[in-house]
Amino acid sequence: MTIKDIAKKCGVSVSTVSRVLNDHPDVSAANREKVLSVVQEEHFVPNNSARDLVKSPSDAIGLVVRGVGNPFFTDIIHAVEEACEAAGYTMVLHQIRSGEDELRAGAELARSKRLRGLILLGGQFDYTPERTAALGIPFVCCTYTNSFGTLPSDTYSSVSIDDRKEAYKLVSLLTKQGHRKIAVILDSIEDHSISQLRYHGYCQALSDSGIALDPELVVETVSFEMTDGYTGMEKLMRRRDDFTAVFVVADALAVAAMKALHDHGKRVPEDCSVVAIDGIEMSAYTVPTLTTLVQPRKELGRESVGILVDMIEGRGKNRHLLLDTAIRMGGSICSL
Amino acid sequence: MTIKDIAKKCGVSVSTVSRVLNDHPDVSAANREKVLSVVQEEHFVPNNSARDLVKSPSDAIGLVVRGVGNPFFTDIIHAVEEACEAAGYTMVLHQIRSGEDELRAGAELARSKRLRGLILLGGQFDYTPERTAALGIPFVCCTYTNSFGTLPSDTYSSVSIDDRKEAYKLVSLLTKQGHRKIAVILDSIEDHSISQLRYHGYCQALSDSGIALDPELVVETVSFEMTDGYTGMEKLMRRRDDFTAVFVVADALAVAAMKALHDHGKRVPEDCSVVAIDGIEMSAYTVPTLTTLVQPRKELGRESVGILVDMIEGRGKNRHLLLDTAIRMGGSICSL
Repeated sequence: MTIKDIAKKCGVSVSTVSRVLNDHPDVSAANREKVLSVVQEEHFVPNNSARDLVKSPSDAIGLVVRGVGNPFFTDIIHAVEEACEAAGYTMVLHQIRSGEDELRAGAELARSKRLRGLILLGGQFDYTPERTAALGIPFVCCTYTNSFGTLPSDTYSSVSIDDRKEAYKLVSLLTKQGHRKIAVILDSIEDHSISQLRYHGYCQALSDSGIALDPELVVETVSFEMTDGYTGMEKLMRRRDDFTAVFVVADALAVAAMKALHDHGKRVPEDCSVVAIDGIEMSAYTVPTLTTLVQPRKELGRESVGILVDMIEGRGKNRHLLLDTAIRMGGSICSL
Repeated sequence: MTIKDIAKKCGVSVSTVSRVLNDHPDVSAANREKVLSVVQEEHFVPNNSARDLVKSPSDAIGLVVRGVGNPFFTDIIHAVEEACEAAGYTMVLHQIRSGEDELRAGAELARSKRLRGLILLGGQFDYTPERTAALGIPFVCCTYTNSFGTLPSDTYSSVSIDDRKEAYKLVSLLTKQGHRKIAVILDSIEDHSISQLRYHGYCQALSDSGIALDPELVVETVSFEMTDGYTGMEKLMRRRDDFTAVFVVADALAVAAMKALHDHGKRVPEDCSVVAIDGIEMSAYTVPTLTTLVQPRKELGRESVGILVDMIEGRGKNRHLLLDTAIRMGGSICSL
């Protein structure tokens, strides 16, 4: 349906339809009513491409955050906002729930806000070129990369930690302190996401210390809710009582796991050492303080914006940045 | 600048300008270029009111959340989203930082998304009619009300707990258990917000038990960051060592305050009872579990949508709902 079809259907000229659509006064009330009624009937949406030329170029960078209320994201969101402003861009924040599709949300935001570029926070690790094609603008995966997908590396950017390497470092710290019965609590060993990557690091660290993988010490929680960290630890305690350390893949789960140990009369770290990765605020206030690898949240946000702005302004190509964590030595581990 | 002025400036007819703006093919390339160049020069924005008539009525309810990453809000956001969907509306989420103006953000969102109604989560308690006039649509204050402002009560709706009454209940629980040296940690006694209201409840409970207010036992933290809960408790311990209980105005601050007590060799609850209000997830995993008044988060969200939809659909007027908390008895208090 074009403006011509509307005119024909109404028995008026194309200019009359045009004048009605532009709210021009020089149209008779009868013609105006006729045109608007057909336009509504036909769900006619005028082509706005000429109109868009009128607008100044957008300065919008989109940030799609998957997982409303994930405390890990708060500092990153602030860092992205500050870096956007410093570079002369406006951040458009859009939060979606964990079950939603960040690529679809990103593509819609790109169109409705005429985004110049997009940062995805908390997305999936297994994109295909078909699924990202709809975005149509440069994008950066922040805190993750396409480890399980098929995107050519020059078609997207990423800023993340090396999940596998960091898990390896952390579990090696435990083996160096004499631990050999080291359990792991994660959501799934095949989640195509951080748990799977960190699990690989765990397995490698055990193997490099000559420790055989013991499937009974691997607890899958299915989710990242705190309550699952608690029940995951209870499950482990029902299975075995000879483990001396636990690597929990995320801080929030670890805080709940420590509570479960306490409630079942086990002391941290005397009876069981606990380590995790993330470094969220909450885990600095547990008793004892959780020993964790702190992700460089501000840098993750800042570098994502830096790469994106370079691409928008034609200075750079897609890049992949791996940042290091910093260990926060709490009181939750001890040597055997 | 109207479409007529553009036509005059270009030396073409109004219909020609109209045709260009509507991307109509029947315009010469020369005229098209001339019109677009003047339109850009003059930053002309066409009047879209006729065009808006074309669109179907909006089904959008806006949710402006002030305080990105506040864990207390997560469940409320989900409840609002579910209730909107159940009522046949679409929730449009917009998060702003604590320093930003939720009324301005709400007014912009109302226009850009053609909102039917607005829910404000985490806003200020002291609106004036002048400041809310720009919204132009029904709105509900969720988790707070206009305690320190001048809005006529029939011009807005609110769904919240009675902060003063709940604080009174909680401090009375401590006095009934024999505590008389009861400290309070809050951001400010004159914040025109929850701290001030909860402080009034604290004062009233002391007074009703014949306990004189002791200014040295009132600690102001200036913010709601966890780190301020920690340093607030340290400040209290430097001032005095004879308090036997502390009422902390928010769970997150209380978790940090408990950690400070522990780090300074004080046991909870043997040496000091700790209570708070909010009932966030994190405080269920402290050792011991925090005793707190749990806000009915799902109900706060659901009732806000209910009131708003009633107004949008012409079934109801502005209303003010006070919901009750439920106590979660943790292990952080004991009798003297």
